[in-house]
Amino acid sequence: MAKENTVIKDRLEKLRAAMAKNGIDYYIMPTSDYHNSEYSADFFKVREYFCGFDGSNGTLVVSQNFAGMWTDGRYFIQAENQMKGTGVELFMMLNPGVPTIAEFLFDNMKDGETLGFDGKVISTSVGENYEKKLSGKAVKYKIDKDLAEDVWTDRPALPCHDMYVLSDELCGRSFKEKLANVRSKMREFGATAHLLSKLDDIMWLTNLRGSDVECNPVALAYAYITFDRFVLFVQEKEVTDEVRAYCDKVGIELKDYHEVMNFISEVKLDGNVLCDKRNTNFLTYKTLLDRTKEAGVLLKNEKDPTEIMKAVKNDTELKNIREVYLKDSVVLTKFIYWVKKNVGKIPMTEYTAAEKLDGMRAELPGFIELSFPTISAYKSNAAMAHYEATKDNAAEVKADGMLLVDSGATYMGGTTDVTRTIVVGEISDEIKKHYTATVMGMLNLASSKFMEGCTGRNVDTFARMALWEMGIDYNHGTGHGIGYMLNVHEGPHSIRWRFNEGMHEAVLQPGMIVSDEPGVYIEGSHGIRIENIVEVVERETNEYGRFLGFDHLTYAPIDLEAIDKKYMQPKDIEKLNNYHKMVYEKVSPFIDDEDVKKWLKEATRAI
Amino acid sequence: MAKENTVIKDRLEKLRAAMAKNGIDYYIMPTSDYHNSEYSADFFKVREYFCGFDGSNGTLVVSQNFAGMWTDGRYFIQAENQMKGTGVELFMMLNPGVPTIAEFLFDNMKDGETLGFDGKVISTSVGENYEKKLSGKAVKYKIDKDLAEDVWTDRPALPCHDMYVLSDELCGRSFKEKLANVRSKMREFGATAHLLSKLDDIMWLTNLRGSDVECNPVALAYAYITFDRFVLFVQEKEVTDEVRAYCDKVGIELKDYHEVMNFISEVKLDGNVLCDKRNTNFLTYKTLLDRTKEAGVLLKNEKDPTEIMKAVKNDTELKNIREVYLKDSVVLTKFIYWVKKNVGKIPMTEYTAAEKLDGMRAELPGFIELSFPTISAYKSNAAMAHYEATKDNAAEVKADGMLLVDSGATYMGGTTDVTRTIVVGEISDEIKKHYTATVMGMLNLASSKFMEGCTGRNVDTFARMALWEMGIDYNHGTGHGIGYMLNVHEGPHSIRWRFNEGMHEAVLQPGMIVSDEPGVYIEGSHGIRIENIVEVVERETNEYGRFLGFDHLTYAPIDLEAIDKKYMQPKDIEKLNNYHKMVYEKVSPFIDDEDVKKWLKEATRAI
Repeated sequence: MAKENTVIKDRLEKLRAAMAKNGIDYYIMPTSDYHNSEYSADFFKVREYFCGFDGSNGTLVVSQNFAGMWTDGRYFIQAENQMKGTGVELFMMLNPGVPTIAEFLFDNMKDGETLGFDGKVISTSVGENYEKKLSGKAVKYKIDKDLAEDVWTDRPALPCHDMYVLSDELCGRSFKEKLANVRSKMREFGATAHLLSKLDDIMWLTNLRGSDVECNPVALAYAYITFDRFVLFVQEKEVTDEVRAYCDKVGIELKDYHEVMNFISEVKLDGNVLCDKRNTNFLTYKTLLDRTKEAGVLLKNEKDPTEIMKAVKNDTELKNIREVYLKDSVVLTKFIYWVKKNVGKIPMTEYTAAEKLDGMRAELPGFIELSFPTISAYKSNAAMAHYEATKDNAAEVKADGMLLVDSGATYMGGTTDVTRTIVVGEISDEIKKHYTATVMGMLNLASSKFMEGCTGRNVDTFARMALWEMGIDYNHGTGHGIGYMLNVHEGPHSIRWRFNEGMHEAVLQPGMIVSDEPGVYIEGSHGIRIENIVEVVERETNEYGRFLGFDHLTYAPIDLEAIDKKYMQPKDIEKLNNYHKMVYEKVSPFIDDEDVKKWLKEATRAI
Repeated sequence: MAKENTVIKDRLEKLRAAMAKNGIDYYIMPTSDYHNSEYSADFFKVREYFCGFDGSNGTLVVSQNFAGMWTDGRYFIQAENQMKGTGVELFMMLNPGVPTIAEFLFDNMKDGETLGFDGKVISTSVGENYEKKLSGKAVKYKIDKDLAEDVWTDRPALPCHDMYVLSDELCGRSFKEKLANVRSKMREFGATAHLLSKLDDIMWLTNLRGSDVECNPVALAYAYITFDRFVLFVQEKEVTDEVRAYCDKVGIELKDYHEVMNFISEVKLDGNVLCDKRNTNFLTYKTLLDRTKEAGVLLKNEKDPTEIMKAVKNDTELKNIREVYLKDSVVLTKFIYWVKKNVGKIPMTEYTAAEKLDGMRAELPGFIELSFPTISAYKSNAAMAHYEATKDNAAEVKADGMLLVDSGATYMGGTTDVTRTIVVGEISDEIKKHYTATVMGMLNLASSKFMEGCTGRNVDTFARMALWEMGIDYNHGTGHGIGYMLNVHEGPHSIRWRFNEGMHEAVLQPGMIVSDEPGVYIEGSHGIRIENIVEVVERETNEYGRFLGFDHLTYAPIDLEAIDKKYMQPKDIEKLNNYHKMVYEKVSPFIDDEDVKKWLKEATRAI
């Protein structure tokens, strides 16, 4: 039997005492902050605190005589290890016979019992699903209490970092112009007020930035918009003099972040309220729902108008993005050269290679932060979807096989993302076949021409065709939108093929930028991903309508050592040669070292 | 001023008298039978009777001092001509400033007035749309009265033709087996009764056929299904002794077609009722809605379970379909030879060419009827989407340009559909370019390999890629499902690319058959369409999942005189050559005439 984990057991006992005090029979702790951000700060790691499991996905459910943690297949082994001796039961999601949390609660909760959770860290869809699944039971809810407040004594503080202001010149549109567009959409929806909870949307709209979420240049914030007010809720300590002066000037009314719930509980409603359920936490949404009912107005659940405005980049943003991607591409090109030159000659691990690349990026003028933790995966590690090398646990990179590097940064002028799989030694014919098909997929999508009205579902298959012909697929989307000095993953558009009834799809529009990243992952052997970022552009408008296409934003060589022409049609070869010609033309002027330039010439040669 | 059309004016006066008698202020006459069939019989041509316009789409609205007819752009000129002197106003749908019918009624109807129509010829979605758009007005409805009954004295009878029975051997599944599957879906949906209104679904389920709708081998029918009854409503006169004996044997309870409304108004409901809104007329749906409310049960609006069962053909159906398509392909091949040999030498019009082909098909054993009126369009006529040559109005086919022929038939063993565009003389380089891209599109889709889970929206672009690259599109879907000895157009699957929020998509499954018919239409110059029917098949199942593809069902030569290799990649040429090799292998054994065989060899040569 595993040794008892008295630390966790002690914490759980304290939690149970708090539950009893608050009249809560079952308490749920998920993995999210108040805004469903991609990364949660330490303050929000309540689930980890009470069960020991620190993976990126897990939900802990506790009652007086039960504790269970639900996670997905990526984490079964890790969770089992980390929760040893805690008495917390592991529920392996999607395994046969394993109930969902809602099913478990339905089977175990008794009429009259109370389900509790902090409704600020539960998304509205999850909260509504609990309510729906438990609707046959006389269950009560307590959703406004974060029990960790009382129990977790050495809890880290809520992230709180200085905000900063981006100039209108850098943003291409002033806050005032953007706000006018949002208000015009509010009018269209028949709303006189709009609560916006999505952090990157608030940052985009205000031309402000912050640093409260890892790798996302955003501050924790809410915005409440009417036709004569714009109230921004942020932590007072984050508001620098510069930010305050800017807000005064442009008419942003500042209130403390922690006041938002009181505010929406009390503010006078003189018309319908626009609020996007997908982006608003359960407690906030429910509060607004009650308030609007009370006031005899409607809560209009419509897409945040900022979402599409943010996704379609303006001319200034596009100009800056193109420049930033080029300088980022130059760094990556130099890094590829460095890897190829030094592999087998100097000590190199996945971790030190990533450190090298991160350091090169950090030296660029305008560098702010990485846009996500660099993925550096050698050989078969690259086949693991969520592999993460750490300083102490990283494979040595030898002169054999390939190194996959997926990386990016946010600079003044844009956020980047790029993946290259670098040949560092001998590779098999099978790898070359897979590599060639991956490259063909990336270029086939990037060079496609399609009619306006297409969504990512229409064009995804262009990237998969060559792989599907070989009976290979990759188990991830082909592309995601990317923010402007914002989150590296943003919607509403994406490039995915799978159909889900009632799913939302966004039509591709000129000015959107999107990733194009097919891959091949062979467990225990190798992983390949080639990712360029492309910009949607107009190609032609004629009697049939408007034809769109993509322009590359990423210019970095694709490893010709892994290309086998026998799998390519003349047109495929032409696409690769054209791309490499552009890479050399764009990148070489920024390469001073003659050795690197010479190598680049060779690395981008026509085949 | 146009000469008065006293015939129409007189009819309208009689209609207005009937309206007054029935307390109806506005009366709507659309274009549909009781089952929203693709073709309406003469009995249903009420709109034509009261305004003179006989196009395939139009809705007439009449009040005491107004008559207006709404139609789409295909018919503006025709409608104007046919309605001259009738006093009926033409409303050009989708033209700027032209109100929809609902908008017109909203603007013109007064509170307290009554809107009337025969709710049996209005689809539920259209009816609900009227109700929704007029919800701000105190408008009353009278939807159970077909005023033509009183006014149209020489009205043609409701179509009434003998039904017939297909053997279980021919259908692959007995009625009993199919019914068990339907009942099992009813259980899943929690329904104890199911009203089925869709004619081809009823025919498929019962293994019966009829001839009440042009080109569709269906009888006018309803089916009411519970766990212990199967009631089939058909016109008594259609029930032959054979049909009656079969129904007795398999437990089909026969009732007269005209009894259905009484039946559903009176039948005891002891549970929820399953009824697919999309396939049920407004009056029937509303009646059931009232009945279920009254009985305290639910009307479950779910997809008819028969829809997907019918679409996925069973092994027997597939075996027969393959044979029927081959014999149909042989006929088409011989016809192509006949056209090419005789053009410019004997008198030939679009109409006589179609007659020749129809006659050749009619001679085949098992021929039942054409699956749709043959489209035969010469040169620029082929660019018109809805061109129809008639005996008296058909272009002469000369030894110049191309003839497009889209045709098919229902035989014992399957329903076919195929298009070939035949070179009959000189064609331009531009035509060759367009023709080559169309063929590449057809073959590219047909030879694609894709993952299970794809719908038509994922693969449509395979057929368009080559055309889109040239900045050309076709303004129709790429593919539709096809019935088994049933309608030439059937769902739920299709191959289309356009996105509509909330649209229904069906995943492609092995056993489905679907058309693959890209085209190019240049107004005033030429029209090209190449259509093969393909069968969805499994290609491979491995660790990534199940890969599907298509097998050709159609084997007829593609005109090499219009192919220009310079637009093709080696892979495209290989696809064409492989297809032609199969065409020769499959078709030539059925060609006795050595001249034809020799020609076919040449027509299917590798290029």
